[in-house]
Amino acid sequence: MAVSSSLKTPLTGQGLRRYFPFLDWLLHYRRSDLPNDLVAGLVTAIMLIPQSMAYAQLAGLSPQVGLYASVAPLAIYALLGTSGQLSVGPVAITSLAVFAGVSALAEPGSSRYLELVLLLAFIVGLVKLLLGLLRLGFVMNFVSHPVLAGFTSASALIIAAGQLKYLLGYRIEGEHVHEIVLNAVAGVNQTNPATLAIGAISIALLILFRSQLKPLLQQRTRLPAAAVTLIVSGAPLVTVLLGILVSWFWRLNETAGVRVVGAIPQGFAPFTLPTWSAADAQALLPTAMTIVFISVVESIAVAKALASKRRKAINADQELVALGAANLTASVTGGYPVTGGFARSVVNDQAGAVTGLASLVTAASIGIIVLWFTPLFYYLPQAVLAATVIVAVLSLFKPGEALRIWRMNRTDAVTWGVTFAVVLLFGIEAGILAGVVFAILLFLWRTSRPHIAIVGRVGQSEHFRNVLRHQVQTCPHVVAVRVDESLYFANTRYLEDALLRIVAERPEVKHLVLIGSAINFIDASAMETLESLLRELRAAGVALHLADIKGPVMDQLQRAGFIDHLGAERVYLSTHQAMRALECV
Amino acid sequence: MAVSSSLKTPLTGQGLRRYFPFLDWLLHYRRSDLPNDLVAGLVTAIMLIPQSMAYAQLAGLSPQVGLYASVAPLAIYALLGTSGQLSVGPVAITSLAVFAGVSALAEPGSSRYLELVLLLAFIVGLVKLLLGLLRLGFVMNFVSHPVLAGFTSASALIIAAGQLKYLLGYRIEGEHVHEIVLNAVAGVNQTNPATLAIGAISIALLILFRSQLKPLLQQRTRLPAAAVTLIVSGAPLVTVLLGILVSWFWRLNETAGVRVVGAIPQGFAPFTLPTWSAADAQALLPTAMTIVFISVVESIAVAKALASKRRKAINADQELVALGAANLTASVTGGYPVTGGFARSVVNDQAGAVTGLASLVTAASIGIIVLWFTPLFYYLPQAVLAATVIVAVLSLFKPGEALRIWRMNRTDAVTWGVTFAVVLLFGIEAGILAGVVFAILLFLWRTSRPHIAIVGRVGQSEHFRNVLRHQVQTCPHVVAVRVDESLYFANTRYLEDALLRIVAERPEVKHLVLIGSAINFIDASAMETLESLLRELRAAGVALHLADIKGPVMDQLQRAGFIDHLGAERVYLSTHQAMRALECV
Repeated sequence: MAVSSSLKTPLTGQGLRRYFPFLDWLLHYRRSDLPNDLVAGLVTAIMLIPQSMAYAQLAGLSPQVGLYASVAPLAIYALLGTSGQLSVGPVAITSLAVFAGVSALAEPGSSRYLELVLLLAFIVGLVKLLLGLLRLGFVMNFVSHPVLAGFTSASALIIAAGQLKYLLGYRIEGEHVHEIVLNAVAGVNQTNPATLAIGAISIALLILFRSQLKPLLQQRTRLPAAAVTLIVSGAPLVTVLLGILVSWFWRLNETAGVRVVGAIPQGFAPFTLPTWSAADAQALLPTAMTIVFISVVESIAVAKALASKRRKAINADQELVALGAANLTASVTGGYPVTGGFARSVVNDQAGAVTGLASLVTAASIGIIVLWFTPLFYYLPQAVLAATVIVAVLSLFKPGEALRIWRMNRTDAVTWGVTFAVVLLFGIEAGILAGVVFAILLFLWRTSRPHIAIVGRVGQSEHFRNVLRHQVQTCPHVVAVRVDESLYFANTRYLEDALLRIVAERPEVKHLVLIGSAINFIDASAMETLESLLRELRAAGVALHLADIKGPVMDQLQRAGFIDHLGAERVYLSTHQAMRALECV
Repeated sequence: MAVSSSLKTPLTGQGLRRYFPFLDWLLHYRRSDLPNDLVAGLVTAIMLIPQSMAYAQLAGLSPQVGLYASVAPLAIYALLGTSGQLSVGPVAITSLAVFAGVSALAEPGSSRYLELVLLLAFIVGLVKLLLGLLRLGFVMNFVSHPVLAGFTSASALIIAAGQLKYLLGYRIEGEHVHEIVLNAVAGVNQTNPATLAIGAISIALLILFRSQLKPLLQQRTRLPAAAVTLIVSGAPLVTVLLGILVSWFWRLNETAGVRVVGAIPQGFAPFTLPTWSAADAQALLPTAMTIVFISVVESIAVAKALASKRRKAINADQELVALGAANLTASVTGGYPVTGGFARSVVNDQAGAVTGLASLVTAASIGIIVLWFTPLFYYLPQAVLAATVIVAVLSLFKPGEALRIWRMNRTDAVTWGVTFAVVLLFGIEAGILAGVVFAILLFLWRTSRPHIAIVGRVGQSEHFRNVLRHQVQTCPHVVAVRVDESLYFANTRYLEDALLRIVAERPEVKHLVLIGSAINFIDASAMETLESLLRELRAAGVALHLADIKGPVMDQLQRAGFIDHLGAERVYLSTHQAMRALECV
């Protein structure tokens, strides 16, 4: 079975190789992978150039900050990460989180704003690194699928609303989506026609490229798949270049009031350590934690999905280390928080990326842009970047996901709704927190009112199932009850009441068999309740028996002395044995 | 079976009788219960007189406030409560909570302090009443046994330390136990010898009465049990009267500087509505919630235990309503927060209380004291009251409880320790909160790393158990795995990794049977994981089968379309059937 070795290697990688996965792939690089990695790296770079500038603008930063964040951090992730396909860099949702968190503390565009963003990247990096080194990656699991889905859809709306000002060409105030839309409508007569035209045409082009170009190329031409991916993912760059051309030719910034990107400094930002201040760090911590949670959950999910397609596994803790190092790098090279992007990673994968070399190629390509080609972007209209952002986040807005979750589990759909609503009404940090807390409360509520089934024998088998769902045999003097939950403080009283009621409603019952097949542990509160249940049943003339108790639970019952109180002869290996002993089968 | 009807009545009581339980017992009062209720009511009053004054002193209030809290609130509880034995009134732990919460906002002894205490009682009453009417009593279950036990033991230490100043007769500053003890030692040369002598003798008397008198009377005399209880529970009152006598005879307050209770106004406090202020209410809310949680959990546990001894049941939601009404009554009659006390209720029960009439008798007796006999307490040394408190709370300090919990469940013992330590170091509200949160996190952590067992057939039975614990048969091409936990967001990734590893380690396996006997629900995140697990196993050439899936879980899997993807023929009613179909048995 092919999967076994490839699944095991990354999970059990030891020593240096655990922490430096590139020792595995770079030192044993197969020449046959080189063309794939080269093409994939270039394709991803072509996609990343406009994206990184657009997302930086969304984060309230100058375009070059997005470019800086796409060079050194990418290279570091390529060396330390366990996924050869994940494309790290600026992404829309974390850019929104950066803007929401830092714009509350400083004016976007000011040097103080940039200083805080660098500190934020440093904290994000530090937290991720620590979580990874301490192998605490599992805490990420508390961001459940419905929370992430509701959060993403709501964020997409916020991001799109925030881009309206670039698209219409006038100042639009407001923090929440409904305010922004209302203010946009109120000021619609200030619309800059040229800006709107450029934005609308860009959006149309991008959507056309995405929805029409790929099937067209696949059906009408015989181009290889990688070439199709190259052409399609080049669409945003082509749109950007067209926008620059048009804006430069008519000097639209002077003649028609179209806002352009303007001068971008050539070369890299100087290496700087973030300005540490305990007060700033404290103020930024909630934003940092939000970024850590949403970016890591998304990033690891993407990396996992792409790895499993290739029968590889990724190591979640090492991913945290790699993402942490990438963010620390961003904080000292003038960048801002980065993570693995979904769309870009899929493109990287489709274009053929096999190892981290693909990301190294991407980083190098953007490095060349930064060093020599930034003047090219002087005339780039901001509306084109806004169009790039809007088209990118359109695919993140998935209200249908709520319906799909509803079909899986209705209460989880409520979690989706709570997260979605709180993000829209109170902001993204409150939304994530509300979603996580709500999901935990929901879980506690579910487990605090466990399903309790009275069971009977299925035909002549040794199998016992719910009397309400199956054709089963029972007998009047014995009631066999299966409790479908571990016994713990939140459900012990509910359980005690339910069992006493079952017995009270059946005066002919002399034996209660408690079936432990679904009881996975018993805590101290539940142990107290079992003791009092035993006393109460005895007083009522009903004998308690235990059947199908799992090993670890049996150990607990023994240690607590409950088996001594109950009588060891009243414990049966299986429900069938208990029922036979009680002359019920 | 005698238990059935008595258990059912209170749980199914409808209409007026649900909300006014006294309609049941008062209108159909059996004359034969009268002597029992009368004696029990008097015995409890004799115990409550010194206690109510002592606990009021502990709460930073004048002694008469404790007496007021023991009249009208008791009567209201007697009419609305569902327990005939629970003795409501001031108790040590809530008195401590009142002092800790309100002394941070006003100077004890000031009129502002009393005003805030009345508002606090009002809020406590309102919260309890609402929880009861909305049937939200189950939220109390989140205060688990280890949290309550740790909290109680730590509080006992704090209370005892707080009484040192009355016992030694000099001012001792400090908030935490270690500070108080250190300051007490530092000022030991200021000790008032007469005060210390009175306190020490009182403590010795009270302990002697409690530990020696009862066995002595039982063994050497032929007194009926009720009379023994009467004499033993009269001990504190006897001590108080002795203290008054000695102090009055030698005028110790003037001659030896012994602090006495002083003038207590005769008659009741005028009826007053609490002074409402949103700011004060907000400041008092954390204290109020702490009092609600600790008092209700303790109170309902005591009522339940005493009821089950008599084959009765109590209704937790109606208990909340009754306790809420009692506290609202306290807030308008010059009292302070009340609840059901453990020791006093046990005495009430042992003295023979059958119905709420016993509590009505207690309330009437204290009412008579308030109306005509308060001058009696002028010379009562405060040290005697302090001795009463110390001896009462000594029985609450149970470090051995931690050991008992340790034997039941080691991690729960950590919860005990966390609660105990946080209460001592950071105060009682922080302690309750830390305990509850820690217990929830512990539960989440437990369920996020579920026990996973590979099972085999036990002998020739249809029963399958853990290969590591039982002598069982397996076969190489099938692995049957029992997951001992519901599948939800916090454990899905752990589970996926574990199952893939099991398969990867067994290259000869062609079939994975997932046994659902312990899976009680599957949330949306887990559904996603199951889908991806199915894909990954298929890619590895392993077929997934399901066995022993419960009804509600099967419904979910069907609704989500998972059964269609899996193939309905791969779902088996029992593990035995699955293994037979796969030719493994």
